[in-house]
Amino acid sequence: MVQVAVLGYGTVGSGVVEVIETNKADINKKAGEEINIKYILDLRDFPGDPYEDKVVHDFNIIINDPEVSIICETMGGNEPAYTFSKNALLSGKSVCTSNKELVANHGPELIRLARENHCNYLFEASVGGGIPIIRPLNYSLTAEKIDAITGILNGTTNYILTEMDENGADFDAVLKEAQEKGYAEKNPEADVEGYDACRKIAILSSLMKGKSVHYKDIYTEGITKITAQDFAYARELNRSVKLLAMSKDTEEGFFAMVAPFMISKEHPLYGVKDVFNAVYVHGNMLGDSMYYGRGAGKLPTASAVVSDVVDCARHPGKTIMCLWEDESVSLTDIADMKRRFFVRVSADRKQKAESLFAVHTEVNAKMEGEYAFITDIMTEKEFDTKVSEMGGVINRIRMEG
Amino acid sequence: MVQVAVLGYGTVGSGVVEVIETNKADINKKAGEEINIKYILDLRDFPGDPYEDKVVHDFNIIINDPEVSIICETMGGNEPAYTFSKNALLSGKSVCTSNKELVANHGPELIRLARENHCNYLFEASVGGGIPIIRPLNYSLTAEKIDAITGILNGTTNYILTEMDENGADFDAVLKEAQEKGYAEKNPEADVEGYDACRKIAILSSLMKGKSVHYKDIYTEGITKITAQDFAYARELNRSVKLLAMSKDTEEGFFAMVAPFMISKEHPLYGVKDVFNAVYVHGNMLGDSMYYGRGAGKLPTASAVVSDVVDCARHPGKTIMCLWEDESVSLTDIADMKRRFFVRVSADRKQKAESLFAVHTEVNAKMEGEYAFITDIMTEKEFDTKVSEMGGVINRIRMEG
Repeated sequence: MVQVAVLGYGTVGSGVVEVIETNKADINKKAGEEINIKYILDLRDFPGDPYEDKVVHDFNIIINDPEVSIICETMGGNEPAYTFSKNALLSGKSVCTSNKELVANHGPELIRLARENHCNYLFEASVGGGIPIIRPLNYSLTAEKIDAITGILNGTTNYILTEMDENGADFDAVLKEAQEKGYAEKNPEADVEGYDACRKIAILSSLMKGKSVHYKDIYTEGITKITAQDFAYARELNRSVKLLAMSKDTEEGFFAMVAPFMISKEHPLYGVKDVFNAVYVHGNMLGDSMYYGRGAGKLPTASAVVSDVVDCARHPGKTIMCLWEDESVSLTDIADMKRRFFVRVSADRKQKAESLFAVHTEVNAKMEGEYAFITDIMTEKEFDTKVSEMGGVINRIRMEG
Repeated sequence: MVQVAVLGYGTVGSGVVEVIETNKADINKKAGEEINIKYILDLRDFPGDPYEDKVVHDFNIIINDPEVSIICETMGGNEPAYTFSKNALLSGKSVCTSNKELVANHGPELIRLARENHCNYLFEASVGGGIPIIRPLNYSLTAEKIDAITGILNGTTNYILTEMDENGADFDAVLKEAQEKGYAEKNPEADVEGYDACRKIAILSSLMKGKSVHYKDIYTEGITKITAQDFAYARELNRSVKLLAMSKDTEEGFFAMVAPFMISKEHPLYGVKDVFNAVYVHGNMLGDSMYYGRGAGKLPTASAVVSDVVDCARHPGKTIMCLWEDESVSLTDIADMKRRFFVRVSADRKQKAESLFAVHTEVNAKMEGEYAFITDIMTEKEFDTKVSEMGGVINRIRMEG
């Protein structure tokens, strides 16, 4: 019997308990051991809950119980999750987490601690919710040199952008509706400003390189400036606007960024709608492969945590290979990245725009008083310089695919 | 150092050598060991080939060399691959294979032999080419009760159907073109009759159930009767025709089948074009997840074989969990499956069709002398009875999604 403790009885934590209970027979078979939840750590009590008697308020009870070999950290945030995880690993207890914040901040240290203490720090649930993506990168694509990852990694923003696209609604209205439906937090900053996607692409990029890509180094732009008008133009172009998180290992350097992009109907991520997530991985032998599914939600995320529990149960006393060293990857300034840009200016500045930019295509979405166009391919730096010379534009969105 | 032998220096075998050579540094790092190709077994000689000196003609050299711990079986077919694989496993050498024929025929026996001899029989490359799908099923979705798998599992037929859809061409013409391009075999039966997809869904279904789903039990219908006219109707319905391989675990029983289906633009497999493959997996906690990529081709398939080699190298003397017992799954007759059908009859039989079938929608694709419609939902059995009463129809295609 494998004894498990769950830290935090919130959405994901209670999901972990539910998944283990519902699929008990299958999970035990696949783990080769009976998985049993011994403790649930939470500050609150849960009178009437069927697991009421497993709830404890003191982490020391868990850490001091030699029977507990696996800990599910579903608290989120940096502290006390960091201290708890560290202490667990130091006592040889494996940690399975959904905490992207902690993984992005302390991943390599916690992975090293796990290795030194013959246990595991696993984090399948930290990126893409229930989509298996960490394990495919670590275990499946092992014969590949992965050179690009592009993903829709945040369900909230993808839901908002899908609604804006399909119903012609404005950002603020859709955000409000998403908050009412529980798809967006009361404080939506982490999602809509791209911070959440940034942490996730930092984790994926680190696994791609085997070294640390720090999320603070990644250029990140959210979706708050995207308007219903932008979508009208996008439709005119047979395109949509998606928040993409991407990293590319090129001869010019290693690039990573999070930003809204106008993508074409032919782009493989075009069809990823609502709260779904998808990750495109390019390897030098395999070419493109894609992983798609529910990027968030109680049960999908919990399912990923439990898949890590099963992996730990299968490998007692053994550390599963995970290459993510402390050494930092230095990111190349995105100023050198080249692409086309979609640009809107007021109609009276058409001439100036034409003289400054190499206009590749004009875009007519019957927007009164506006002139819109797509530029030739140019670097971000060149583009920014021209925008300054214009004295600003109404909006601009990067083009992809 | 891990010594590897490659059986069969054809397309996939030479790909294995190329992948290991090209990505040597990354692969060795991920394996935690240096992977070295010691032997290549082939009946032919390869004068001038850089690996000429590794070529041997006698399997005994390999089986008797205690240094060799991993064998890549990329010969295909049942014999001598079966005997070689069995003997390798009996001597404790792991086997990594791309041979779907052999896996579908002898999977559980070879998996058991591996377990008994503390080595591995791995077959990531047998389904979906380079798409990681076996490992996600075995290692990632371990917290799930998987109840449905639907896939486009054959690249040749998907290429043919895509061409027919996009260029309005007829089956025979596209097949000929595909043969000239090397996308289809001279004898295309295994692909176009659905036999290849059938073996692959048998493998996936067996992993889903942990027991043996025999491919001979799976109802299989190929694409040879699909015409340019059918695609004209499909376009009228905003649909396309795809060869789907599916299995479903329902309260009414376990169903599996391979057949062409008319699927809507909203269907997640609609966008899977050309030689690409995709597998949709439905689990009771996660809901849908999808795996997409190149389903065939030298390097993608070889990359999957090498990922198995890395897995073996990481687990010396240890059998990686794979639940696939000898016990057979009894399949429920598809006669009881319910769905709508698209039907074409000659125009003069419109009245008879209307009196026999509950016509749900008429379909007008301006096809002279024809009457086409979509039926209400009915069982395959009910449908077949009505088709007999009609004395046959011009064509009928199952509807999905």
